[in-house]
Amino acid sequence: MTAPELHPVLAPLAFLLGTWSGSGHGEYPTIESFDYHETIEFGHVGKPFLAYRQRTSRPSDGFPLHAESGYWRIPTPGMVEVVLAHPTGITEVTEGTLTDTRIDLRTTSIARTSTSKEVTIVERTFTVDGDTLRYTVRMAAVGVPLTHHLEATLHRQP
Amino acid sequence: MTAPELHPVLAPLAFLLGTWSGSGHGEYPTIESFDYHETIEFGHVGKPFLAYRQRTSRPSDGFPLHAESGYWRIPTPGMVEVVLAHPTGITEVTEGTLTDTRIDLRTTSIARTSTSKEVTIVERTFTVDGDTLRYTVRMAAVGVPLTHHLEATLHRQP
Repeated sequence: MTAPELHPVLAPLAFLLGTWSGSGHGEYPTIESFDYHETIEFGHVGKPFLAYRQRTSRPSDGFPLHAESGYWRIPTPGMVEVVLAHPTGITEVTEGTLTDTRIDLRTTSIARTSTSKEVTIVERTFTVDGDTLRYTVRMAAVGVPLTHHLEATLHRQP
Repeated sequence: MTAPELHPVLAPLAFLLGTWSGSGHGEYPTIESFDYHETIEFGHVGKPFLAYRQRTSRPSDGFPLHAESGYWRIPTPGMVEVVLAHPTGITEVTEGTLTDTRIDLRTTSIARTSTSKEVTIVERTFTVDGDTLRYTVRMAAVGVPLTHHLEATLHRQP
């Protein structure tokens, strides 16, 4: 099986492709701060979207923590649209801008199952410098206004 | 790496675990009918959710068609909650009932990016009989009321 060519519309996001691993730190007013390991995968099948998934684990024993999966698109040059599902029973539609290798996203819609926690805004910033990816996440949830939540640094795997 | 034990809350969904492959048929008033090949994967990491992803392709040449990814949970016995992301720029929160090996889901929320098509209701029925999984999908979208859209039969891969 040969890898398909990247759809031309995705060329501005080609810098995301591959598997990234690294570590991050999370904090939020309602929880204890924590460190995590993370793996992020960006793949494609030749169509005009990137498939995305990530998973995090506890550094001490590899116990799985969070996960997300979804798809990234470029609706018009310079813009990025992302749809995500979370195992916490939340879906996220998030949109924003692409400037060189920096992506700024803010949720335009968050939906949830009957039993999941209230999350109202998520803002994400991704920056890639060669084979290093850094991101930060700010979140408004469970009554807390928009507050820094996550930051991580990952490296592209060979 | 040893596989973790299935979280006890997921025991009623254990019949879904594994990789399923097969074929389906799609139709909708606004498009030409089509056949497809499909692969569905249900996995877990020991936490109280199943990770789900599927992809379909054109039988004649394997060209990728649709894809979905997300997570399944059992909030209370007999109930199922699913969150999904679609590369068409749509997220789906869908909830319903589990009766033996039959699952009936109806969307409680659909969200979309600025540029995606309007989908208003999706109903899904899954039935598993041993190593055979059948599903049907009904959809209301782009002004069409709830209408049969997809049916497929898949077999669990060894």
